[in-house]
Amino acid sequence: MEKTRYLLDEKDMPTQWYNILPDLPEPLPDVLHPGTGQPVTPDDLAPLFPMGLIMQEFSPEHYIDIPEEVQAIYKTWRPTALHRAYRLEKALDTPAKIYYKYEGTSQGGSHKPNTAIAQAYYNKKEGVKRISTETGAGQWGSSLALAGAFFDIEIKVYMVGVSFYQKPYRRIMMETWGATCVPSPSQDTQAGRDMLAKDPDCPGSLGLAISEAVEDAVSRDDTHYSLGSVLNHVLLHQTVIGQEAKKQMEMADVYPDIIIGCIGGGSNFAGLFLPFIKDKIEGRKPDLRIINVEPASCPTLTKGPYAYDFGDVSGLTPLLKMYTLGHDFIPPPVHAGGLRYHGMAPIVSHLYHLGLVEAQATYQLDTFEAGIKFARTEGILSAPETMHAIKVVIDEALKCKETGEAKTILLGHSGHGHVDMAAYEAYLSGKLTNYEYPEEMVKKALENLPKV
Amino acid sequence: MEKTRYLLDEKDMPTQWYNILPDLPEPLPDVLHPGTGQPVTPDDLAPLFPMGLIMQEFSPEHYIDIPEEVQAIYKTWRPTALHRAYRLEKALDTPAKIYYKYEGTSQGGSHKPNTAIAQAYYNKKEGVKRISTETGAGQWGSSLALAGAFFDIEIKVYMVGVSFYQKPYRRIMMETWGATCVPSPSQDTQAGRDMLAKDPDCPGSLGLAISEAVEDAVSRDDTHYSLGSVLNHVLLHQTVIGQEAKKQMEMADVYPDIIIGCIGGGSNFAGLFLPFIKDKIEGRKPDLRIINVEPASCPTLTKGPYAYDFGDVSGLTPLLKMYTLGHDFIPPPVHAGGLRYHGMAPIVSHLYHLGLVEAQATYQLDTFEAGIKFARTEGILSAPETMHAIKVVIDEALKCKETGEAKTILLGHSGHGHVDMAAYEAYLSGKLTNYEYPEEMVKKALENLPKV
Repeated sequence: MEKTRYLLDEKDMPTQWYNILPDLPEPLPDVLHPGTGQPVTPDDLAPLFPMGLIMQEFSPEHYIDIPEEVQAIYKTWRPTALHRAYRLEKALDTPAKIYYKYEGTSQGGSHKPNTAIAQAYYNKKEGVKRISTETGAGQWGSSLALAGAFFDIEIKVYMVGVSFYQKPYRRIMMETWGATCVPSPSQDTQAGRDMLAKDPDCPGSLGLAISEAVEDAVSRDDTHYSLGSVLNHVLLHQTVIGQEAKKQMEMADVYPDIIIGCIGGGSNFAGLFLPFIKDKIEGRKPDLRIINVEPASCPTLTKGPYAYDFGDVSGLTPLLKMYTLGHDFIPPPVHAGGLRYHGMAPIVSHLYHLGLVEAQATYQLDTFEAGIKFARTEGILSAPETMHAIKVVIDEALKCKETGEAKTILLGHSGHGHVDMAAYEAYLSGKLTNYEYPEEMVKKALENLPKV
Repeated sequence: MEKTRYLLDEKDMPTQWYNILPDLPEPLPDVLHPGTGQPVTPDDLAPLFPMGLIMQEFSPEHYIDIPEEVQAIYKTWRPTALHRAYRLEKALDTPAKIYYKYEGTSQGGSHKPNTAIAQAYYNKKEGVKRISTETGAGQWGSSLALAGAFFDIEIKVYMVGVSFYQKPYRRIMMETWGATCVPSPSQDTQAGRDMLAKDPDCPGSLGLAISEAVEDAVSRDDTHYSLGSVLNHVLLHQTVIGQEAKKQMEMADVYPDIIIGCIGGGSNFAGLFLPFIKDKIEGRKPDLRIINVEPASCPTLTKGPYAYDFGDVSGLTPLLKMYTLGHDFIPPPVHAGGLRYHGMAPIVSHLYHLGLVEAQATYQLDTFEAGIKFARTEGILSAPETMHAIKVVIDEALKCKETGEAKTILLGHSGHGHVDMAAYEAYLSGKLTNYEYPEEMVKKALENLPKV
């Protein structure tokens, strides 16, 4: 029998992050200044981010050293295990071999600390005392709170309102690690107050919470802003996942035919697939399939145009070329709060535009059905976000059953769902519904795309 | 720099459980039949347990093979990591070296699956279709639900009422894995109905929930009963923890001066210390200190007599010689639901009686203060049960700071607290209180000790 889990010793943990930028077949489109429409300079971003991160955002280096202080904290839970899903394979009666890289064993329960630790480190190094951020389901906010505790930085989190009330445990996690967390829209910013005046019951959105956090940062000298996904440096930090997984797949003496993950802003899945896609770009693995899975109710890649748009509702951020549903689109309140974002990481968008990766959209009820099957076979209670990827893994494994092909499938398992049990209850008690693609709302939001 | 985490490959996972019984300096007192007062025979226990477990309960073998099917499931999360708590050490400014064996990475988030998987296996092997059990905070019930999913066995859980309502997430976990969970006292058994008639607001206790689960099992032909702690075979299964920790301490080239863990029924901590106490019994480590930590509100070892008592409220179980606060004592509703038990594992009781292990009682507020310090240094959000042990680890580390001794401390970290965030919120918002030792209630309960 092959192994169940492939472990790496901490001496085999990556000591560098992998930067895809110089390996892209075509360069990434410029990031534009929202005022001038010209490419942004590092100095333009300095009010928001420390220079260490800004330089990573545009770096031409293939690999960037992970600072020792960051490695030391990574080692409190990394390297993470690669699992073989024997029980799920057996339950599906499939010849496919299913592996999953599991990020749920971090202190925050997801992949998010990989970048939170790094971002807090560079801010600390440059003397920043306070960081503002937004969070959807709370995985990002709680991870930055954790990083704030490690580096003694004050953290203020604007949490999407619907998740703030649906997922109180994530807020308490943030408070336990010493952060302050408010529901967005909040009374603490102009963006929040404006929205509340317009709609006092606004459920919030990631785009709006970003507006609040950015406004907070630019209005205070002691504060920087931090983003948990989307940007190049965030995806960069997550490449520890894929580098480890590559070594572990080698230990198992296999290479994936298909890699599958869920995408909200795109960072967890890009962190897994970027070190692999290098093999596809360079012609060694031309048939490698990479499937991005998003909610049918917020289908950025599968339905949105590839266009310049703001990262936030208020139009405070630079303009990014990305697939988007419009910066003022507010997605339906699916439990996978981390996937409720109108845009998509420019790197993921670019790779999708170039045809190097695929995308699929799935319905909420199907994802929960898949998540429960995973729980009852592999034991792990997955985050609702991760269930989106599990749904497509099961689909692909069942196709293998039909064709008799023993494909190797690699799932990016982004985190556990122990603090999402209210969503499980809603599903088990029949109270959960599907949300259709809100076509009219998107159409309206797309009318507000900035003119470039 | 030394390592942060010591990992074992799955080929180094123990393939046998360690049985302390033949190594005890004096034999364990007999278990007595509640009706006859005579030592129980294996046949007496057959209505409750499969013979595979009954034989383990009395086994004279030093080591017992772990069945391959059980090993295969253990490998979905075992071996678990041994961590060095560098950040906690630094925050305490102590010369002590603190290590912790962390069981929170199992699918259930605690050590409980170690025995749940084994118990479900032996029941399945003997054709049992359904198992009834009780649970306190829900760690045990959810772990048996997980094991039921792995082995396709129906699970019915009687959950202590106060925890059922305080910790809904644990109930939902059980339901996700396919089990049925009711609050105890329930209308489903005579023991439950009698208690509800007497006190409709009864918060429940482990002793009462055991009565309900045992009654359920003996009244149905298709059902066995399962206990998550206390009994010899349960402690046996948990020795995978200590055997792994011993190998990992060897990798770190250290041996503990002090081992510290929390005790409710005693199984998680005994699972850690039994493979080490062998070295003390056999004279190789005469100075090894082993500290059992219990709540001041339920101080079984530190305040109770060593006497024969029932395991449950109704007096359905065999009589065990143990430290006890009286089988009908209902402990105050501390958040560490897993430590709210009137009795103590006979093996732990015996070792305490022989002076081979120590015991300390701690107050709820002190344990949360320690748990928050651990969260803000090591990152891990601990279960309220585990916080009891962390409190004493910090005390001992601070003593080292005073004396300048660089002692090696090993903490048994039994699980994470991601589903206990309501308790964290109560503490952080100042709503948590201490519970004093309920001396009068215990005095009254001890009047009802069975005459032997």
